[in-house]
Amino acid sequence: MDMGRCIAACLDCHRTCLATIQHCLTKGGHHAEQAHIRLMMDCAQICATSADFMIRGSEHHPHLCAECAEICRQCAEDCEGHPGSDDAMRACAAACRACAEECATMARPR
Amino acid sequence: MDMGRCIAACLDCHRTCLATIQHCLTKGGHHAEQAHIRLMMDCAQICATSADFMIRGSEHHPHLCAECAEICRQCAEDCEGHPGSDDAMRACAAACRACAEECATMARPR
Amino acid sequence: MDMGRCIAACLDCHRTCLATIQHCLTKGGHHAEQAHIRLMMDCAQICATSADFMIRGSEHHPHLCAECAEICRQCAEDCEGHPGSDDAMRACAAACRACAEECATMARPR
Amino acid sequence: MDMGRCIAACLDCHRTCLATIQHCLTKGGHHAEQAHIRLMMDCAQICATSADFMIRGSEHHPHLCAECAEICRQCAEDCEGHPGSDDAMRACAAACRACAEECATMARPR
Repeated sequence: MDMGRCIAACLDCHRTCLATIQHCLTKGGHHAEQAHIRLMMDCAQICATSADFMIRGSEHHPHLCAECAEICRQCAEDCEGHPGSDDAMRACAAACRACAEECATMARPR
Repeated sequence: MDMGRCIAACLDCHRTCLATIQHCLTKGGHHAEQAHIRLMMDCAQICATSADFMIRGSEHHPHLCAECAEICRQCAEDCEGHPGSDDAMRACAAACRACAEECATMARPR
Repeated sequence: MDMGRCIAACLDCHRTCLATIQHCLTKGGHHAEQAHIRLMMDCAQICATSADFMIRGSEHHPHLCAECAEICRQCAEDCEGHPGSDDAMRACAAACRACAEECATMARPR
Repeated sequence: MDMGRCIAACLDCHRTCLATIQHCLTKGGHHAEQAHIRLMMDCAQICATSADFMIRGSEHHPHLCAECAEICRQCAEDCEGHPGSDDAMRACAAACRACAEECATMARPR
């Protein structure tokens, strides 16, 4: 049940980050800064990977979820605190925050 | 709007196929046949890839959707027609069928 | 044998495109234009997906390879023809061109 | 330099695990056991993900590499110690072992 919610949060965060990357590249300037885009690429990928480990029922999922929670937390801060943060970026931060919280409940660092 | 529905159908089919692979491996015997498992692996991956192309708004997404629709159609047939098809496999076939239909509306073969 | 070479070319192109995205984001300006970065993201992903279909020996690989050849061809042109194309971008174009050629030998459009 | 070697080891291990899954499914019986196939699926995916984090130069790569090293280590043991381990499975174990060693040099657990 909890895992089902966590998988949904990961897939939602994956989708939101991937879309927000295109949004930020279109805005350009500091929105397209390498560190910002890269963090969203990291976040999109760890979310997809963590979701897959949970879907497979892998015993390794708690370690992936621990990492996912941390990257999502940083991505949320980056999207929220970014100069010129707009609605799309705040929506991305919200999806990251929600995913970080769900993953934290599944997490067990190695 | 239509694209949003197609993305959701792809992510749902990805998740269902990945879970059904584990189900079929656990049942074993002809459920774990290579051709069957491989087709579900193909389906899970093309769904995730097509979803990402649509999320990015890539102009190449109609070609990916065309391929996705075809693989989903075959996977639905395989899950439904498989000897000893059970509830989980019929649910997988339904997710594949739904995804094939959505992708067909987005598709344009190369 | 041919397939082994094609898989290697796909994995090499995936790696090169992913690295060049970071290079172009760091340079900024028109190097970080959305259409350019998105095409390299498309290319990196279709290469990885095509490689996996070939590695699995999937019967669907010729269709993925057809799509991969086309996207790689466009990505090579974009990296080469881009204003201010530099060594890294020319190396990316070369990896894309090599992958497009290998994939074309495996391709069969749907 | 070390990172380049680690990326290559991850991509090689990804490829080998994905191919060995098909090999084991074809052999069937205990080769197709869920736990065995799932561990190789986990291994193939964490290798691809860790490689991408390194290719992007992400600061999070040491945590992914730590997880990758552990999963590769377990996959190597499983392939080697499996009843009826054959040449393909021993080759898979070797690729996993090589990747585990490279990743261990890059790893920093969270």
